[in-house]
Amino acid sequence: MTENLDVNVALGPRSYHISVVSNQFDQFAETLENWLNRNPAFRNTVSEGNKSAFIITDQNLAELHTPKIETSLESRGWKWETVVIEPGEKSKSLSVISSMYDRLVELKADRQTIVIAVGGGVIGDAAGFVAATYVRGLPFVQVPTSLLAHVDSSVGGKVGVNHPQAKNLIGAFYQPLGVFIDTSTLETLPKRDYCSGLAEVVKYGAILDVKFFQYLEQNIEGLNQRSDDVLRAVIARCCELKAEVVEQDEHERTGLRAILNYGHTFAHAFEALCGYGELMHGEAVSIGMVYASYLAEELNLISHKETERQIHLLQALGLPVSLPEGIQLNTEDIMDRMKLDKKTVGGQLRFVLPTCLGRVEVFKEIPEALVREVIEQLNQTTSRDDFQI
Amino acid sequence: MTENLDVNVALGPRSYHISVVSNQFDQFAETLENWLNRNPAFRNTVSEGNKSAFIITDQNLAELHTPKIETSLESRGWKWETVVIEPGEKSKSLSVISSMYDRLVELKADRQTIVIAVGGGVIGDAAGFVAATYVRGLPFVQVPTSLLAHVDSSVGGKVGVNHPQAKNLIGAFYQPLGVFIDTSTLETLPKRDYCSGLAEVVKYGAILDVKFFQYLEQNIEGLNQRSDDVLRAVIARCCELKAEVVEQDEHERTGLRAILNYGHTFAHAFEALCGYGELMHGEAVSIGMVYASYLAEELNLISHKETERQIHLLQALGLPVSLPEGIQLNTEDIMDRMKLDKKTVGGQLRFVLPTCLGRVEVFKEIPEALVREVIEQLNQTTSRDDFQI
Repeated sequence: MTENLDVNVALGPRSYHISVVSNQFDQFAETLENWLNRNPAFRNTVSEGNKSAFIITDQNLAELHTPKIETSLESRGWKWETVVIEPGEKSKSLSVISSMYDRLVELKADRQTIVIAVGGGVIGDAAGFVAATYVRGLPFVQVPTSLLAHVDSSVGGKVGVNHPQAKNLIGAFYQPLGVFIDTSTLETLPKRDYCSGLAEVVKYGAILDVKFFQYLEQNIEGLNQRSDDVLRAVIARCCELKAEVVEQDEHERTGLRAILNYGHTFAHAFEALCGYGELMHGEAVSIGMVYASYLAEELNLISHKETERQIHLLQALGLPVSLPEGIQLNTEDIMDRMKLDKKTVGGQLRFVLPTCLGRVEVFKEIPEALVREVIEQLNQTTSRDDFQI
Repeated sequence: MTENLDVNVALGPRSYHISVVSNQFDQFAETLENWLNRNPAFRNTVSEGNKSAFIITDQNLAELHTPKIETSLESRGWKWETVVIEPGEKSKSLSVISSMYDRLVELKADRQTIVIAVGGGVIGDAAGFVAATYVRGLPFVQVPTSLLAHVDSSVGGKVGVNHPQAKNLIGAFYQPLGVFIDTSTLETLPKRDYCSGLAEVVKYGAILDVKFFQYLEQNIEGLNQRSDDVLRAVIARCCELKAEVVEQDEHERTGLRAILNYGHTFAHAFEALCGYGELMHGEAVSIGMVYASYLAEELNLISHKETERQIHLLQALGLPVSLPEGIQLNTEDIMDRMKLDKKTVGGQLRFVLPTCLGRVEVFKEIPEALVREVIEQLNQTTSRDDFQI
C-alpha cells in the first residue's frame, strides 16, 4: 500500500496541486479531471465533455511513458494528439514552438484543450511556453520524468525557450493546472541524470530545512536504491520547500527566489567553462555548493563541520565535490564568467551563502580577493580523496 | 488649466494607472518615474539610476509623437533606443518579434529595461508581447495614439501577434506598468480612424452606463470637434468601465468579459465578408450594435426607442448604422461566418444583447430563424436615410 502525497502550491487564483505517486499512471486521467473540476475556470470542461488533450513529448519518452498517459486518457473518453519533438536543448527554440502552434491550429484547439508535457526540463519549458502563448493561455499539465524536473521545474512556473545568444531568454511565468509526478519514471533514468537531480535535492536541505537534510543523511541507501517510498517523501518535500519560496516571490521580483541559486553562481561558471555537456547541471551545482560553503567558512558564517556534512552527503549520493580530474580552470576565467551571470547586478558579484545548515542569505559585498583565494585553494584539489572526512 | 485624470486598474499586484492628459508629453518621464517608485518590484529602479528604455513605434509615428517621448526621457537622464517597425497588421508576426528579441540582446537589456509602445493597437500588441516574453517579463508602458487604442487596448492586458491562419492567436495576458494617454495624439488622426474609435466609446455607454450614454448625447459637438476636455472625460470613463469588467475577469475565464463584445458577433462577420480593410473595425461594430439591438427588440428585451437612441448617437458621430451602399451580403453567409467566431462554443451562436440602455446580457439559445429575419430585414436598408428618426 503506497501513500500518495499531494503538495498544494498556493498562488491565489493560480494555485495548483502536485500529485506525487508511484506506479499510478493509470490514475492520470482521473487526477486530471479532479484538477479541472476543482478549478473555477475549468469547472465545466469535464461535465460538458470537452475532453481534448495535446501531448508534447520527446522521442526518448514517446515509447517509454507517453503510452501510459494515452491509455489512461482513453479509458476516460479523452481525445488526444501526441507531438514528438527531438530530445535536447535544441528543441527549446522559437521554430519548434512555431511548428507546435501550426499543429494546434490544424487540430482546431480551443481554450479548453489541455497541453500535457511528458518529459524532462526541456519538454516542460517548451510545452509550457506553447501553453502560455497559444490563444493567451491553454491549461497546462506537467508530467515530469527526470528527478531534476520533479524537484525543480515542476514548481515555479518558469517556461520558455532559448535565444541563439542566451538560454531561457524568451519565456514567461505561467503556472500549470497540475503536476503529476510518478516515481516509476526514475527507474529507467541513467545514473548520471539521477544523481544530478539529487544535487538539487541536497540543495533544498542545505538552504531551507536542516531536518530534511538529516532525513537525506539517514536515507542514503534508499535514495541510491531509488526506493519509491523514500523518493515520494523526498520529492514532495522538495516541492513544498520550493513552493514556500515561490509563493513569496512568484515573478522573481523581491529577490527572495535568489536563495534557490545556492551553488549556482559557481556552477554556471563551471558549466560554461567546461563546455556545456561536460558537467551535468547537478554535478556543477554539487561542486558549486562546496565552493560556496568554503567561502562561507572563510567569512566565518559557518563552521567547517557544516561544509563537511554537505561534502559527505553529496559524495555518498554519487556526486562530485570537486572539478573532475583533467579539468583545469583558471581562477580569473571563473571570476570573469561569474560576473557575466544574469543574476549579477552592475557587475557586482552576489553569492547565496549558508549562515548555518538549513539557512542561506544573499551576500553582495564580498571582497573579490577572498573569492579568488577560495577558488585557488579548491581548484588544486581535483580528486575526491582530498575531501575525505 | 486642464484637469489630468487618473484611472486605477485594480488587479492586485498587477494593478496599474492610466494617466489621461492633454498636451503634456513633457511630463511623460516624470509620470513614468512615479509609476516605478510606487511599484514594489521597481521601487529602486530610478534611485539606482537604471533608467533605460526600449521604445517601439511605427514609421508613421516615429516622426510625429515619439520625439516628444524621447525629449522627455532625455530631460530626466534616461537612456533609450527606438525601434521603428512598419505600420499595419503584418508587423504583428513572430518574425518581427524575433528581430526585436535580437535587438534587446544586442543592447544587453535586463529585467529593468522599460519597453515603451508608442502607437495604435498593432504597436501595443506586438510590443506588449515582446515585453511579456523577454527574460520572462520586462516592465511595459503604453502610449496609445489612436482613440481605439485609448479606450480599448490600454485596458485588459491582451498582447500578442497573428498566426498566418488567425488573428491574435499567439499571445498572453500581460498588464502594463502604466498607460499614458495624451489626447493631443488625436488631433492628427484621420477622421475615419477617429470615428471608428467613437463606436467603441458608444458601446461602453450602451452596455454599462446609461448616464455616460446621455453624456455622449449631450456632447456630440465636443466629440466631433475633438475637444480635449470632452475627450479626457470620455476616455477616462471608458477606461474605468472596461477596468471594472476586466478586474472581475482578468483572464477571460468567467465569461464576464464577453459583454465587451456587444455588436461584435455581427461586426466580425461583416468585416470578414466585406474583406478586411473595407469596413474599419469600429464601423463594423457600429453597424453590428444596430443589428444586435434590433434582435433584442425582436426578443422583447428593449423598446424601439432604445435602438433609435443608439442609431441617432452613432449617426451624429459620423458612424454608419447600416451596410454601405453597394455591399450586398447574403444572410446565410453572415450566419455561417458568425458560427465560426472564436467566441462560439459548440457551434451555438451567442449574442450580447441589451436588456435596457446601459445593460447587456449574454444570450445563448436564440432561435436561428429570428436572427435570419433580423438580418434579412436590415440588409434591405443599406442607406442611412431608412433609419432617420
